[in-house]
Amino acid sequence: MKKVGVAILGLGVVGGGTYQILTQNREFYQKTQDVDIVVESVLELNRERALSLGVPAEKIMTNIAEVVCNPDVNIVVEVIGGIDAAKEYVLAALNAGKTVVTSNKELFCKYSHELERAAKRQNAGLYFEASCVGGVPIIRTLLDGLQANHITSMMGIINGTTNYILTKMSNEGMTYEDALKEAQRLGYAEANPTADVEGFDAAYKLSILSSLAFHTKVPFSKVFREGITQITQEAIADGKQLGYCLKLLAIGKQTDAGIEVRVHPTFVRKDHPLAAVNDSFNAVYLHGDAVDDVMLYGRGAGALPTGSAIVSDIIYAATHSESRYSTFKNTANADKSVNFPSDFSSAYYLRLSVTDRTGVLAKITNIFGKNNISIVEMQQKILDGDKAAVTFITHESRELAIRDAVSKINALEFASVDSVLRVVS
Amino acid sequence: MKKVGVAILGLGVVGGGTYQILTQNREFYQKTQDVDIVVESVLELNRERALSLGVPAEKIMTNIAEVVCNPDVNIVVEVIGGIDAAKEYVLAALNAGKTVVTSNKELFCKYSHELERAAKRQNAGLYFEASCVGGVPIIRTLLDGLQANHITSMMGIINGTTNYILTKMSNEGMTYEDALKEAQRLGYAEANPTADVEGFDAAYKLSILSSLAFHTKVPFSKVFREGITQITQEAIADGKQLGYCLKLLAIGKQTDAGIEVRVHPTFVRKDHPLAAVNDSFNAVYLHGDAVDDVMLYGRGAGALPTGSAIVSDIIYAATHSESRYSTFKNTANADKSVNFPSDFSSAYYLRLSVTDRTGVLAKITNIFGKNNISIVEMQQKILDGDKAAVTFITHESRELAIRDAVSKINALEFASVDSVLRVVS
Repeated sequence: MKKVGVAILGLGVVGGGTYQILTQNREFYQKTQDVDIVVESVLELNRERALSLGVPAEKIMTNIAEVVCNPDVNIVVEVIGGIDAAKEYVLAALNAGKTVVTSNKELFCKYSHELERAAKRQNAGLYFEASCVGGVPIIRTLLDGLQANHITSMMGIINGTTNYILTKMSNEGMTYEDALKEAQRLGYAEANPTADVEGFDAAYKLSILSSLAFHTKVPFSKVFREGITQITQEAIADGKQLGYCLKLLAIGKQTDAGIEVRVHPTFVRKDHPLAAVNDSFNAVYLHGDAVDDVMLYGRGAGALPTGSAIVSDIIYAATHSESRYSTFKNTANADKSVNFPSDFSSAYYLRLSVTDRTGVLAKITNIFGKNNISIVEMQQKILDGDKAAVTFITHESRELAIRDAVSKINALEFASVDSVLRVVS
Repeated sequence: MKKVGVAILGLGVVGGGTYQILTQNREFYQKTQDVDIVVESVLELNRERALSLGVPAEKIMTNIAEVVCNPDVNIVVEVIGGIDAAKEYVLAALNAGKTVVTSNKELFCKYSHELERAAKRQNAGLYFEASCVGGVPIIRTLLDGLQANHITSMMGIINGTTNYILTKMSNEGMTYEDALKEAQRLGYAEANPTADVEGFDAAYKLSILSSLAFHTKVPFSKVFREGITQITQEAIADGKQLGYCLKLLAIGKQTDAGIEVRVHPTFVRKDHPLAAVNDSFNAVYLHGDAVDDVMLYGRGAGALPTGSAIVSDIIYAATHSESRYSTFKNTANADKSVNFPSDFSSAYYLRLSVTDRTGVLAKITNIFGKNNISIVEMQQKILDGDKAAVTFITHESRELAIRDAVSKINALEFASVDSVLRVVS
């Protein structure tokens, strides 16, 4: 039976989960995969943590050189996160001819070209299933399951923290602040939640997934990004009444104008499969020219689900003789021939505060008309005194036309725009 | 660039879709997969059909020998269906050292051991993604995406015809007969619908999927099977009122008692992800020890979705140097050490017709009590005169205990059981 030695760099949440799966399931993999996967070493400065997970003392290393020079190590698992040390260690491992399995979305998003070059030079493998959507095998699916297809669009709920917060706001009427606190208490959100709530995490993943789906480098810098910190309970309540759930969607589209990539809170129709993706669950909804619509749903984070992705990559690497790389032109920047339009088309929800004066509504609808924005639905709710809240759902409109209309409405004396959200039906 | 020659056996719906994808996307695969896939020949007796799909006359064969002796053919796609000719041709192709890609669930379910033995002898590949759940890459996912996991359970809506019929009955109040006719009119159901509506098709697929999930041969004969022909509008209406959707589920479970495999109509709670799988869409919901819950959703049939699975298999075979086989002990019969218990545990829905006589309900609940069946919910509806309909939802109970109770209730003078359905929450 083939024996494969693994080193794990970093025994945090995911590293710990990976160690647990590999040790508990070792016999299972011998039986079902005909491969003996042995953890040969871990790189972890916190010796107590490693010992408490059951790592034998002699396998705990504190120096990357000890790991990459160990001839018994074939596969190096990087679960440190961030860029600096992670990048240095991954390159050291690849340069030493070790296959690398990583969960590091930021690293892979920003430096996949550099890592892949190093890997190919040494004929080493480079696997990154765990970098996107936790245990959901979306990358394997894009590379080996749906590769017959021109993927034309992709919509994903690919950040569990924000989905948890939005679910709480929607189902329990919590404010954004309270839902965030609850998420932090449960360990779903970090003390500094910026990477999640401002959409950076989702944008890294979208950059990776859309590069694979569209077979060309889609750099992080091309991803339009809007977070959920400005979401109000009023907007969520309006959406519910109109038949929508609010989700932070990562959207990638191949259109005649080029590749659209954007992360923003979005109203999704209640009967769309993505609307039922709640709490910390994630999902990716794809459309391919042959397969039509496909959705993958599961846990987007967590020690064991992310460990599942890492260990599946390890087994894949151990049981296939050639390494599998990305199937796009893996460069630092986008291909010059590919366009990333800054304008795009969507339906919109707008919520306005209006003072009840003659002609105000006429002025607003006049602005919409001049911007080629046509209205599907309008609701007016009288608030205190002469104030009213007016909500609009538009037909497909251009993003830049909406922004122009919003700034013109905000310039009116008796109206202001409280919320603008994109709508997917 | 590597050139790969393909032959397609049978240009029916799926064969036609496969031909279309391969010819339309040839350049796309050259660019993205670095492989040139060329249809070298088709085996089709209906020459007009082949010509109308654009197949050049010189590529239309009528004799399997012409196909398998062609040195330019590397991969043979079998989309004939059924057993006789399909099995003979697939074995001929494998024996000639050709890699085979098949969509034939009945063939693979019944003879995978024989086909795999022939394939391994010649070092040829054998791929069967298209045999289960159309375009949804569930087999690739089990083999290469979730292989780190002990899969403990699997629940699937894996027959589009029955899901379409049940959706129509539920959403539009159609009778079973009318919904079947509508499905036949749209081409979703065959003139003789037995294979679909009696659950044979789902049972073939469940046999294949659970063999892969549980790493041991699960023969078709071990699958408990109950179709949808007895489903009444009353039962569906009851379910709706209680918060359930009715689905034909294929269930595979690894329990301490052994492997449970069963296909039967099942009430699924409205908020379960499977409840939102409507019309001809399919989905498989899995639980693994590491990954937790995962669902794959998509088109379970159709020319292009099934063609997507076939062409993805072709590309996989063309771009990997080793062939990938099943990861279970592929034998004709089940391993003797594996148990397939005929009893299992589930919650149940029962609908009874009762004549209003003193003591009838007491006798019924007495039967439940003696069979260790406890009730979660009971509703009584008075019908004409002294007749009533009584519905029960039970706690988890044993299947054999329920059957015993049903026969005892049917033996009572003033009560009879109209519907028994299993319930998943």
